[in-house]
Amino acid sequence: MNLANYLDNVRATTPLVHNITNYVTVHDVANILIACGGSPIMTDEPDDVEDITSICGGLNINIGTLNRRSIEAMFLAGRKAASLGHAMLLDPVGAGASRLRTETAKKLIAEFRFTAIRGNVSEILALAAGGTSTRGVDASVADAVTDANLPAKAAFAKAFAAETGSVIAITGAIDLVADATRCYAVRNGTPRMGGITGSGCQLSGMTTAFLVANRDNPLEAALAAVCTMGLAGEIAESRMQPGDGNATYSDRIIDAVSLMDGATLEKGAKYELL
Amino acid sequence: MNLANYLDNVRATTPLVHNITNYVTVHDVANILIACGGSPIMTDEPDDVEDITSICGGLNINIGTLNRRSIEAMFLAGRKAASLGHAMLLDPVGAGASRLRTETAKKLIAEFRFTAIRGNVSEILALAAGGTSTRGVDASVADAVTDANLPAKAAFAKAFAAETGSVIAITGAIDLVADATRCYAVRNGTPRMGGITGSGCQLSGMTTAFLVANRDNPLEAALAAVCTMGLAGEIAESRMQPGDGNATYSDRIIDAVSLMDGATLEKGAKYELL
Amino acid sequence: MNLANYLDNVRATTPLVHNITNYVTVHDVANILIACGGSPIMTDEPDDVEDITSICGGLNINIGTLNRRSIEAMFLAGRKAASLGHAMLLDPVGAGASRLRTETAKKLIAEFRFTAIRGNVSEILALAAGGTSTRGVDASVADAVTDANLPAKAAFAKAFAAETGSVIAITGAIDLVADATRCYAVRNGTPRMGGITGSGCQLSGMTTAFLVANRDNPLEAALAAVCTMGLAGEIAESRMQPGDGNATYSDRIIDAVSLMDGATLEKGAKYELL
Repeated sequence: MNLANYLDNVRATTPLVHNITNYVTVHDVANILIACGGSPIMTDEPDDVEDITSICGGLNINIGTLNRRSIEAMFLAGRKAASLGHAMLLDPVGAGASRLRTETAKKLIAEFRFTAIRGNVSEILALAAGGTSTRGVDASVADAVTDANLPAKAAFAKAFAAETGSVIAITGAIDLVADATRCYAVRNGTPRMGGITGSGCQLSGMTTAFLVANRDNPLEAALAAVCTMGLAGEIAESRMQPGDGNATYSDRIIDAVSLMDGATLEKGAKYELL
Repeated sequence: MNLANYLDNVRATTPLVHNITNYVTVHDVANILIACGGSPIMTDEPDDVEDITSICGGLNINIGTLNRRSIEAMFLAGRKAASLGHAMLLDPVGAGASRLRTETAKKLIAEFRFTAIRGNVSEILALAAGGTSTRGVDASVADAVTDANLPAKAAFAKAFAAETGSVIAITGAIDLVADATRCYAVRNGTPRMGGITGSGCQLSGMTTAFLVANRDNPLEAALAAVCTMGLAGEIAESRMQPGDGNATYSDRIIDAVSLMDGATLEKGAKYELL
Repeated sequence: MNLANYLDNVRATTPLVHNITNYVTVHDVANILIACGGSPIMTDEPDDVEDITSICGGLNINIGTLNRRSIEAMFLAGRKAASLGHAMLLDPVGAGASRLRTETAKKLIAEFRFTAIRGNVSEILALAAGGTSTRGVDASVADAVTDANLPAKAAFAKAFAAETGSVIAITGAIDLVADATRCYAVRNGTPRMGGITGSGCQLSGMTTAFLVANRDNPLEAALAAVCTMGLAGEIAESRMQPGDGNATYSDRIIDAVSLMDGATLEKGAKYELL
C-alpha cells in the first residue's frame, strides 16, 4: 500500500464536500479541506441541503452544536447523499454527553450506512455499547486506547465496523482505523494536538475528502487521512519557536497539511496492521 | 483619482457595518473590518436586526449558510437600511449552486437597490442570466474573466450594473468593478488567495465599510476595497517563509490590511479603466 | 493575595465550561478556554443545553448573535446551572445597542444571580442605568473609565455588584473588578487589544473557568482572569515583528495564555485595590 496515492487522488480531483458541522470549528474544517486539496461547502438549512449535497461528492455530518433545524437537515442531506451513492462520514461530537447527541447519532447510524464514522474513543463507545463515559467533548482517560488494551480495542473497532458497515476511525494518542476484518493502529501525532480545539472536526472533514477521492478503498483512504493529520501535527510541532503556543500551533497544522506531499506522507506515516 | 483617500476616509470615520453573514468566515469578516478601520456588528435574528442596522452606516448581506431565520432577517434589515439610506452590499455566495440561494439573491436584488453586489463570476452570471454553472462556492473555470474575454465580461458587468443600479464587483484572477458606464479591471492579488476560505467574504465586508465612508463615490470606493484586498494578498505572499502554508497566509492578509496605508495602496494598486 | 494560585487551580482541575456564545468569536473562546487550562463545550439548542450544562462546572452566557432559539436555551441552561450551584457568567454583548439585547440581558439578571457579569463600560451602564450609549459592540468614548473618574466608576461598579449580587468586571483601558464592597483597578493590556475582535468574549470564557476553579473567591478569580488576559496582550505585543498585524496579534494572545504560568502572572499583574 502506498498512502501517497490516496493524498494524490484528493489533490488531483478536488472533491467537493458538503459539511453540516458545528460553528465552533467550521472555519478550520473549511480551511483544512482546501489545504488537503478538497473544496468545502457548508449549509445546514433543510431547504438548501438537498441541492447542495447533490453537487458534492461527499457529506460530512458533525453533530457538535446540533440544533432542531440542523438535525432535520442532517437527515434530508443524508437521504439525498445516500440515494446518490456519495461518501458519507459521521462525526458524533459529544455522543454520550447528552441524550440528544447520543440519540441523534444513533438514529443517523440506524438510517444510514456511513462510509466512515470518526470520533474519540468515548464517543464511539457511547454509540456502540450505550455507555456514557464521555467527558463533554473530550474522551475519558479510562477509555483511552493504550498498548496494553490494543487487541481488545481493535476487536471492538472491528465489531462496531461490522455492526455499522462503516469504516471506524477512533482517534487519540493511538488511532485505530478499522473495517470489519482489519484494524490499523496509527502512531502519528503529538500530545499537543489535544491542546487545540477542532483537530478531530478537521480530521473528519479531511477524511471525507479522502473518501470521495478514493471511493473504492474507504479503509485505506481513512487511514491515509488519519496519518496525514497526525503527521501534520508532528511537522507543526517541529516548527514551534519559543513563545509560540496553541494558536500558532493550530495554524501550523493547517500549513503543514497544505504543504503535505505524497512522499512526505509515505515516509512519515507510522501505522501497522494489527 | 487617488485611491488613498478612500482608505483614509474609512480610517477617519470608523464606519459601523451590520453583517448578516455565514458562520464559516464570520470571524475573518469581523477582523478584516476592524483591520481596515471599520467596526463590525453581527446579528441575524429578525427581532434584533432592525435596531442594530439602524445604528450602523452599512449593511453587508452574505447568503452563505443562509437559513429561514436569517433570510427573514435579511429582508427586515434590508428594508430598514434602505429606509435610512444606508450603504448596502450583497454577496450572493453560492448563487447558482442551489435554488434557495439563487432565488433568495434574486429576491433581494428585486426588492433592494444594493449599493454594490460582489461575487465570483459564476455567482454573478447565475443572477444575471439564470445560468447555473457555479461549482459550489467556487467559480467555474469556464466562466473566468481572462484577457481574451475582458471586453465581453466588462460589457456584461456594466449591463448588470445598469439592470440592478448597483456597482458590480466580480472578483477572480482579474477583478472587474463596474457601474453602468465604466468598468475597471484590477490585477492585484495572487493565485494563493484561492487557497484559503473567506477572502471573498472578507472583501465584501471591507467593501461595505469603504462604501459607507465614501458614500458619494461607490464605484471608486469598491475599486479601492478590491485593490486593498488584492494588494494585501500580495504583501502577505511576500512575507511567506519556508514551511508557511494556508493558515499563515490567511493571517498575513489581515495583518497586511491592518497595516495598509494610503501611500502603499496608491503605489501598489494595479487597475485600469477599460 | 497570590494571583498565581487562581491560575494554578484552573490548570489543576480542567474546569468544563458550557458556553452559549456568539458565532463570531466562538472559536477563540474555545481556544482560550483550552489555553488557560479549561475545557469548552458549546451548545445553544434548548433540547441539549440542560444535559450539557449538567456535566459542566460553569456556564458562560454571551448574548452576541443571540436568537430566539438561543435565548430560550439561555434560560433553560441558566435554570439548570443555578439549580446545580454552578458558576455562571453573563457577557451582555451589545446591551444598549438594541432592545432585544438590553431586555434579554436584564431578564437574565432579573432571574439569575450570576457569579460574575463582564462587559465594556457602555454595556454595563446600559444594564444598570437604562442608558443606551453603547456604540454597537464597542464602548462609547464618553463612558470610558479614566484616572479622573476612577472613584466614581468604582462606586458605580460596587453599587451594581450590590444590586445584582454578582462580581462586576468592566473592561477597557483601565479594567474594574468589583464586588459590593471592594473594587480593583487593573492596568494590564495594550491599546492594540481593541483592534481585534473577541478579546472581551475570550475574557468572559476564561473568567468562567477561573470562577469554576476558584468557587469560593469569585472576586479574586475574576481579577486573576482579567490580569491574565491583559498580561497576555502585553506579552503578545512584545513579540510583534515588522509586518505583523491584527491577526498575528490575536494568535499571540492565545499563545501567551497557553504559556502563562503562575509566576509570570504574579509578576506581571498590575492591579490595585481602590
